Amino acid sequence: MSGNTLGTLFAVTNFGESHGPAIGCVIDGCPPGMELAEADIQAELDRRRPGTSRHVTQRNEPDAVEILSGVYEGKTTGTPICLLIRNTDQRSKDYSAIAQTFRPGHADYTYFHKYGIRDPRGGGRSSARLTAPTVAAGAVARKWLAQQYGMQFRGCMAQIGEIEIPFESWEHVPHNPFFAPVADVSALEDYMDALRKAGDSCGAKIRVTASGMPVGLGEPLYDRLDADIAKAMMGLNAVKAVEIGAGFASVTQRGTTHGDSLSPEGFRSNNAGGVLGGISTGQDLEVTIAIKPTSSIISPRETIDIEGRSTEVITKGRHDPCVGIRATPIAEALLALVVMEHALRQRAQCGDVRLPVAPIKASA
Amino acid sequence: MSGNTLGTLFAVTNFGESHGPAIGCVIDGCPPGMELAEADIQAELDRRRPGTSRHVTQRNEPDAVEILSGVYEGKTTGTPICLLIRNTDQRSKDYSAIAQTFRPGHADYTYFHKYGIRDPRGGGRSSARLTAPTVAAGAVARKWLAQQYGMQFRGCMAQIGEIEIPFESWEHVPHNPFFAPVADVSALEDYMDALRKAGDSCGAKIRVTASGMPVGLGEPLYDRLDADIAKAMMGLNAVKAVEIGAGFASVTQRGTTHGDSLSPEGFRSNNAGGVLGGISTGQDLEVTIAIKPTSSIISPRETIDIEGRSTEVITKGRHDPCVGIRATPIAEALLALVVMEHALRQRAQCGDVRLPVAPIKASA
Amino acid sequence: MSGNTLGTLFAVTNFGESHGPAIGCVIDGCPPGMELAEADIQAELDRRRPGTSRHVTQRNEPDAVEILSGVYEGKTTGTPICLLIRNTDQRSKDYSAIAQTFRPGHADYTYFHKYGIRDPRGGGRSSARLTAPTVAAGAVARKWLAQQYGMQFRGCMAQIGEIEIPFESWEHVPHNPFFAPVADVSALEDYMDALRKAGDSCGAKIRVTASGMPVGLGEPLYDRLDADIAKAMMGLNAVKAVEIGAGFASVTQRGTTHGDSLSPEGFRSNNAGGVLGGISTGQDLEVTIAIKPTSSIISPRETIDIEGRSTEVITKGRHDPCVGIRATPIAEALLALVVMEHALRQRAQCGDVRLPVAPIKASA
Amino acid sequence: MSGNTLGTLFAVTNFGESHGPAIGCVIDGCPPGMELAEADIQAELDRRRPGTSRHVTQRNEPDAVEILSGVYEGKTTGTPICLLIRNTDQRSKDYSAIAQTFRPGHADYTYFHKYGIRDPRGGGRSSARLTAPTVAAGAVARKWLAQQYGMQFRGCMAQIGEIEIPFESWEHVPHNPFFAPVADVSALEDYMDALRKAGDSCGAKIRVTASGMPVGLGEPLYDRLDADIAKAMMGLNAVKAVEIGAGFASVTQRGTTHGDSLSPEGFRSNNAGGVLGGISTGQDLEVTIAIKPTSSIISPRETIDIEGRSTEVITKGRHDPCVGIRATPIAEALLALVVMEHALRQRAQCGDVRLPVAPIKASA
Repeated sequence: MSGNTLGTLFAVTNFGESHGPAIGCVIDGCPPGMELAEADIQAELDRRRPGTSRHVTQRNEPDAVEILSGVYEGKTTGTPICLLIRNTDQRSKDYSAIAQTFRPGHADYTYFHKYGIRDPRGGGRSSARLTAPTVAAGAVARKWLAQQYGMQFRGCMAQIGEIEIPFESWEHVPHNPFFAPVADVSALEDYMDALRKAGDSCGAKIRVTASGMPVGLGEPLYDRLDADIAKAMMGLNAVKAVEIGAGFASVTQRGTTHGDSLSPEGFRSNNAGGVLGGISTGQDLEVTIAIKPTSSIISPRETIDIEGRSTEVITKGRHDPCVGIRATPIAEALLALVVMEHALRQRAQCGDVRLPVAPIKASA
Repeated sequence: MSGNTLGTLFAVTNFGESHGPAIGCVIDGCPPGMELAEADIQAELDRRRPGTSRHVTQRNEPDAVEILSGVYEGKTTGTPICLLIRNTDQRSKDYSAIAQTFRPGHADYTYFHKYGIRDPRGGGRSSARLTAPTVAAGAVARKWLAQQYGMQFRGCMAQIGEIEIPFESWEHVPHNPFFAPVADVSALEDYMDALRKAGDSCGAKIRVTASGMPVGLGEPLYDRLDADIAKAMMGLNAVKAVEIGAGFASVTQRGTTHGDSLSPEGFRSNNAGGVLGGISTGQDLEVTIAIKPTSSIISPRETIDIEGRSTEVITKGRHDPCVGIRATPIAEALLALVVMEHALRQRAQCGDVRLPVAPIKASA
Repeated sequence: MSGNTLGTLFAVTNFGESHGPAIGCVIDGCPPGMELAEADIQAELDRRRPGTSRHVTQRNEPDAVEILSGVYEGKTTGTPICLLIRNTDQRSKDYSAIAQTFRPGHADYTYFHKYGIRDPRGGGRSSARLTAPTVAAGAVARKWLAQQYGMQFRGCMAQIGEIEIPFESWEHVPHNPFFAPVADVSALEDYMDALRKAGDSCGAKIRVTASGMPVGLGEPLYDRLDADIAKAMMGLNAVKAVEIGAGFASVTQRGTTHGDSLSPEGFRSNNAGGVLGGISTGQDLEVTIAIKPTSSIISPRETIDIEGRSTEVITKGRHDPCVGIRATPIAEALLALVVMEHALRQRAQCGDVRLPVAPIKASA
Repeated sequence: MSGNTLGTLFAVTNFGESHGPAIGCVIDGCPPGMELAEADIQAELDRRRPGTSRHVTQRNEPDAVEILSGVYEGKTTGTPICLLIRNTDQRSKDYSAIAQTFRPGHADYTYFHKYGIRDPRGGGRSSARLTAPTVAAGAVARKWLAQQYGMQFRGCMAQIGEIEIPFESWEHVPHNPFFAPVADVSALEDYMDALRKAGDSCGAKIRVTASGMPVGLGEPLYDRLDADIAKAMMGLNAVKAVEIGAGFASVTQRGTTHGDSLSPEGFRSNNAGGVLGGISTGQDLEVTIAIKPTSSIISPRETIDIEGRSTEVITKGRHDPCVGIRATPIAEALLALVVMEHALRQRAQCGDVRLPVAPIKASA
């Protein structure tokens, strides 16, 4: 069944392959009357764009977005918004060698066995390139949530491989290619340079937050806010783990410590990560995700071909040695899309969205 | 909008409150012709039942399930299966004191602010009691998946508080109240006894697996198998983190290590946890979840009442000091429900479900 | 896939079989804070109840509804509302003879071929008895729409067999067993008596309206208000046709006549039936449905058995000679459920529901 | 909420406005491995294309479709298929006069009141032009259903205004601009010429059928096959009524006549129109729809402007005097889309689709 739509009330349907004519998405359910121009979306696309530093894939695409529908005289009309991004820098010849083999750790194997056919060019449908339409749709949600409730979505790199990155300030994030919240990223640069020389790849940990949250978003029993965040994040390429608030640390916490006490001024801590019982508390959402190392690496790996015969595979072409580096704006977009969906659900059932009474913002 | 249905093709709609007349669910989409009796479901319900050891809540409910529809002469007919469980041991007087205050770490606060009204008796809709219908529905899915594909779902306790529990054997799991895969649980019993005396609660880590998996289940881009698993697990009461396969360990892995190499006999490892690109590989699914400490504790906590005034709360009544102890059968049920959904989706789009060619089962 | 849920935001999931232990539904998405008691629902159930005149089936069921969840201290809490109706007057022995044959015009044949198994007792899942939960859910929607917007849903019989019934007044409708808007129903009674003696059955035409409609409900392109009305009505047992507004008469109308002209005081006519472009105009909704004659009749019919062999079938037992007679309250409930769904959708996307500026109510 | 998606398993999401840059759709859920080229789709688009006779709008668009995704080396891959049609012959100046007034019988009024904003150019989102993506998606469904089950979808004009059109043969349908099943259409041409001269418009009645139907498609209680057909048809621009099988004629039929008797060779008649209890019988589907007269006419009409002031409106520009003339291929496409959806649903729940045992095809 269709699995390419995220959300129900703010429904984003994603289409395209890495080396096909175009990628894009259709947003159905955007509230009418909001000013929207391609520049609003392009700004977010540019944040995840490849080819911007030596630490990411050298595929150089402008990723220029075109609004095909749903906007009239600069305003959303409430009808579906189709966003189109033409593919322009495909080099499909790079991939011909791998059409017959499966890269360890890659979706090659599973797409082939699921459908009996796959587009191998640039990873086809499984390419991280398909996160671009998600980012584009997220830009629309972010604009609406900012205007309507003053919400803000931010993310940063928390760890690359073994290097934990302390949180210094959000201000540093836009000024380095890693989205790292630190002033000095020379250690990260050295680490990545060494990794690239070794022909290997590494994982990363990303932190994402939402501030200015309303209270009351989330639809238990099953469509909880944290559940939908977990789905969106785990559905991002290469993600292998998701934490909300204290996450795994809550295993060793006591109840007397973990439960965030309340005062008339708000919560005193945020172990909950902004969600209790699947519903937002009004505190900042706090999400952490683990991203695995890229499977497309130049080092030779043992594998099989589509006939099941033993062989070896080396992935040439242009790949990110750490897909986590470009993941921050994507994770922010996903968080915005989930919050947007739940804001509209709350309007449907309860008639409005409630802003919290002075919760203490625990996020740094 | 409705958030009480899990799944689309095998859709489980959950209803009820902890101290209302009854709880239950409607399963819509069960394949016809399968033998199904109440005993099939009761066996799983009994595994999560309260009151079975001193380490869990002393609420004593038989949790007897009644099949109200969808079964004729002992076989499923393809029509909705309603499963009803009457509540019999409610002691609502225990909870009257907390109707006006919010327990730190509890859904009291968010339900009240979302809906403007809440049923405070026994946690109302947010009670862990509402996992019983999920377990009941999971039992139906498990039976079908076992008969159709020989699949098996198992889980065990991996950690309670600070105590990591080594994996000895699945055989031990049914023989202790913790679902621990070890022969000797005396350390766990001592730990829980001390905790209970201290009037505190602790977290836990649970591992869940599925074996006999077909290859090809999962619907990227968004409805990936791992994404839906993450949603189902994070949607379980008190869960704060989910890992698939190597999970957070993949952050520090290299691509040369993480990517599971393939041989003609199957995969050589299972860092993927049975999912690549959001689609099952045929290897065992490997999922780990973190469960926070119970928020209903006897120790006094700083909080506010529904008027926003500062106060203190102590939760009397019968509560699990570690909700993780009873979580294993629930997590197994959730995993089965997600796999069931994706098996039916695979039949819809691709006409059948493919069994893998001899993948190496990496799970212990 | 699951086909037993009507609506998405106000989602009604129906379960049960005619002669199983119980029938019922779960309503997910009801706004919180509305007063709701069993009596609110029972009143509507009593309007469709069998056994109330000699012109309908003599099955005598109290159809007493029990609210199992979602209501606390007399108010809806925003959580799922499960409504249960126990079956009490099953006489399954009446139906044993027909388990092996297919009644012409009956769902016997298709249920058997779809699922490979069917519950033949009283029509099983295909029984018109399963409209009772729909009526119960409709009562909840009606109460909310009346309180929120002052809406009203009314229906009446427009034709039985060859007898067209002129519209005299809504006041007559509750005072005869046909829901006929006329003072004198003796002709209808004679007609039905003759039909019953002949061992035959007949069709009927029903009119349903909604007044007090907001403007702007409906979600084109596909989920238009009239489209969803058509689905709900055609999904009612025995319905073979649906008209909105002028319906088939619009085929021979000219554009200069059909298009309802507008004045500052409102529309001058209602050929549209209250819907333009799939969106409500604020005028009354006007719907007409055709209901086929009952297929369970005492006259012998040529048919086959489940082995495909030629045979004859006579349906004994207690059946309505004109299922249309009890259809009016069901059609009203369906209309209310569709409007409720779209009112919540409108709140989600557009933030509110707009009441129209003085449209002329064209309905008599 | 999103209303621009038709279907769940074969989900078609429609986007675009009449005079925007492009229109199109995304098909999610198409089975993999089917040969698909733009020519397969173009053939159906050409059947509904404007500008092909003097009886339809003179807007002259090639409606050339481009496949943007989901097809690799000429075969579907199971991933979303985006179909794009660029708009090329917009004359937006024609419409500027009507941006401030509401055409009687047109969606102008309701779009404006629903969203508070509308794109008035060429009817914007409410234009019949948006049926082109539906036809394109239908072509994909038709190809798959033909290959898989040998199914065929056909339609024809049954009435224009007062002129009833007898059924002579399917062979005549492609040879006249009316899709009329008669050899001589001179009466229809004279009728339309007179109408056009009078500056007026008229309605029409269309018949659509599906042959080669499997038995068992349809998901009662609510997602019945006939219910979903009714929704799809009533959701087509200008449709005001839908009949299945005998339709309104069943009101005056007796049960002894209406119920189609069965013999070992199949059904003896088809009053059911191929559906019993919401599930296909294996007989031909028989659907009739009523289409209202075009609301965009050159004759002056009384109306109001967006400020609510009394005014008069004349619609210049290029419009179909009878939208029914081009409706036949659209109705066929819609029927195919509904059947496709239900075929996939049947595979999901029941594992396969069953071909009927020799039902008598009652369609002429």
